[in-house]
This record gives sequence, structure tokens and C-alpha cells, in this order.
Amino acid sequence: MRISALAAEAGMPVATVKFYLREGLLHAGTPTSATQAVYDASHVRRLHLVRALLGSAGLSVQQARTIVAVIEAPGDDLYHALGRAVGALPPTPAVPAAAADGGEPFPRARAALESLGQVYDPDFAAVAQLESALASAEAAGLPVDDERLEQYGRHLAALAEFDLDRLPADPASAVEYTVLGTALHEPVLLALRRLAHQDAAVRRLQARPENG
Amino acid sequence: MRISALAAEAGMPVATVKFYLREGLLHAGTPTSATQAVYDASHVRRLHLVRALLGSAGLSVQQARTIVAVIEAPGDDLYHALGRAVGALPPTPAVPAAAADGGEPFPRARAALESLGQVYDPDFAAVAQLESALASAEAAGLPVDDERLEQYGRHLAALAEFDLDRLPADPASAVEYTVLGTALHEPVLLALRRLAHQDAAVRRLQARPENG
Repeated sequence: MRISALAAEAGMPVATVKFYLREGLLHAGTPTSATQAVYDASHVRRLHLVRALLGSAGLSVQQARTIVAVIEAPGDDLYHALGRAVGALPPTPAVPAAAADGGEPFPRARAALESLGQVYDPDFAAVAQLESALASAEAAGLPVDDERLEQYGRHLAALAEFDLDRLPADPASAVEYTVLGTALHEPVLLALRRLAHQDAAVRRLQARPENG
Repeated sequence: MRISALAAEAGMPVATVKFYLREGLLHAGTPTSATQAVYDASHVRRLHLVRALLGSAGLSVQQARTIVAVIEAPGDDLYHALGRAVGALPPTPAVPAAAADGGEPFPRARAALESLGQVYDPDFAAVAQLESALASAEAAGLPVDDERLEQYGRHLAALAEFDLDRLPADPASAVEYTVLGTALHEPVLLALRRLAHQDAAVRRLQARPENG
């Protein structure tokens, strides 16, 4: 299809498609003349991905470009490709001060992961994110104790197995699925968590919502 | 204790304590003279709460004031007090267009909650948040299907029961616990989710992290 049909198919203006092409977020079409090219389903799919990353996921063009680069060249090591792609997603935690002087940079996260029996890889961005989240909860007087950690770990492990069961076999699709599943399902999970609390509260507190 | 001792106890400058007093985020101490007052443990606790809300939780002074108002006057209906307090936390979803013309404002969220057998109360802020999250996932081609919804619902219900078991009996403390548990434990949960995925991936993909 031509660029106008591609834009219509993806539901966005031609100017947006051209912007993504210029920014290296969309791969080039197959040239049919000096000024024209044709596009296929892979382009439609990429447009949906890029729109989600720059839109609701709130990524910068540079962060989206990092993810697109991993999708285009995932390499032989899918585990590290997934880590690189997810690491490009927000939030970007500050590197803790202890890292500079050679001390253990993520003491709380390390202890938590060891207690859960999970892999500890300080290069994985979520380790710094966990350290920062645990430190904030501690400072506010609501630290994550062992029992809560065990609960979180157990239920999230079950959800992770569910997600990994659905991981596409093709590496590029696997990276795409992981990135979108992280960026777009996290807000779903948080909203559902608040609603699960509400549902438990309404039953325990014997109240009735006025509009239920 | 005097204001200087209060500030030292909470680990913040006296100027910050005075700022919180002026902004109505910290309740007044008991006056001992025309220019002095004494503070107690309730003030230390409040300072930790306000610092967490304005700091890592990223609230505005106005949002924090809403939460403090609920803590100071939770009223007789704890269920609605908790809803008001959690509703003041980010994210603040846009009201969908359908709400204005009288249509069902949250069709996806309503269907999801009905399918989970959970209470549906459109005045609860997380309903709009869920609608927006489900719509974004759908637009990106990774909709939350029934099986995923059932998995999320089941595990989050278990975690909600765990949290509600620990809800303090005193209404003001219950509001505080719920607000901090939402604002500070959500980032912990998300970081642990990414790490649970990593742990599942490292085992399934047969790779070894270089620094594990």
C-alpha cells in the first residue's frame, strides 16, 4: 500500500507517518520509484507500537528509538534484548550515591530478591527502581516487611508465568510483546489494584456505594 | 517538644516545618506562649506523611491538602473517606467524552468489573483510570483479554485481602495507611513485577545474567 493508505489503516495523519520515518521509528517501505514506496502489515504494526510508546506510555522519541533498535536487531541473546528494551521504559531511577564509592549500590533490592530466591542482576534497570521504591516506603514509615514482600513476590511470579507462557517465539515479536505488556499493562494492573482494594473495603466496611 | 526538636526528629529544616504549617498540611501545636507551641508524636508522623506525599509520591500541595483534610475529618463513612483520599492521588485520568452526552462513560471498566464480580462505582477515580488504561492497551493491539483479566483480578484480590487485614482500626490511621500503601507500594509492586518477569525469563530462555 501507498503511504496514504498506510496512514489511513493506522488511523493517523500522513504527516505523523512521515515524522516517524524521519525519526527512524518506522522502517522504510519498498521503493517503487524515485519518490514512492509501498508499505505492508509490518508498517501498520510498527505505527501502532510507536503511537503507544509516544502516547500513553509517555516515552521520548529517543527512548522509543532505543526500543525500535532492539526490535530490529534483537540479536542471539533474547534475555538481554528484553532487558535492554524494558530498561528504556520509564521510570528512570537515579543511580544511588553508594554506587560511585564501590559500596553495594542496591542493598534493599538485593536483600529482597535474595529473600525471594530471584535472580539479582544490578545491570537490570528495575533493580534500581526497586531500591528507590523500597527506600521511599521505608522513609515514610511504611517499609515493605518480609511478609508483604513474600506476598507480592508470590502473586507476581504467578502473573509473570502467565505472561511468559504467551511470549511469541519470534524474537522481534517477543520484544514488542514485552515492551507493550510492560508499558500498557502496568497502568491496568495499578487501576485494578485500587479497585480490588475498594471491593475488599466495601465488603469489610459494610458500606454500600451509592451508585453500585 | 519545640519546633526545632520536631524538625530534628523528622529530619527536615525548621523552614520546611513552618511551610507545612502555613500551607495547612501540619496541624498546629499546643500554644505555650504568644509565640511558642509544643508538638508531639502526631506531628512527627504527619511530617513523614506529608514529605512522602510531596516527595516520592509527587503530589501537589493542593492534592496533599485534600488527603490531610480526609485524615483530620474522616467522618462516619470510612469507605467513602478512603475513596476520597485515594482519589486525590495521581494519576488523574481525563473524563471521557461519552460522560458528557449521557452514554456509559466507562464501558470497558464496567464490563471488566462485572466480569470479575467486583463493585462498580463510577464515582471512584480508579474506574476512569482503568477505562483509560484498557482503551490504551486496546489501541496498541494488546487488549486485556478475559483470561488475563481473570488472572490479574484473582491475584490482586488476594493482595487486597492481605492489605485490608492490616488496616488500622482508627479511621485517621486507616486513611493514612491506605494513602501511603497506595502511593508508596505501587512503585514497589511495579518494580517487582518487572523483576518477576526477568526471573521467569532467565529460567525459560536458558540465559545467565553476567553479574548474577
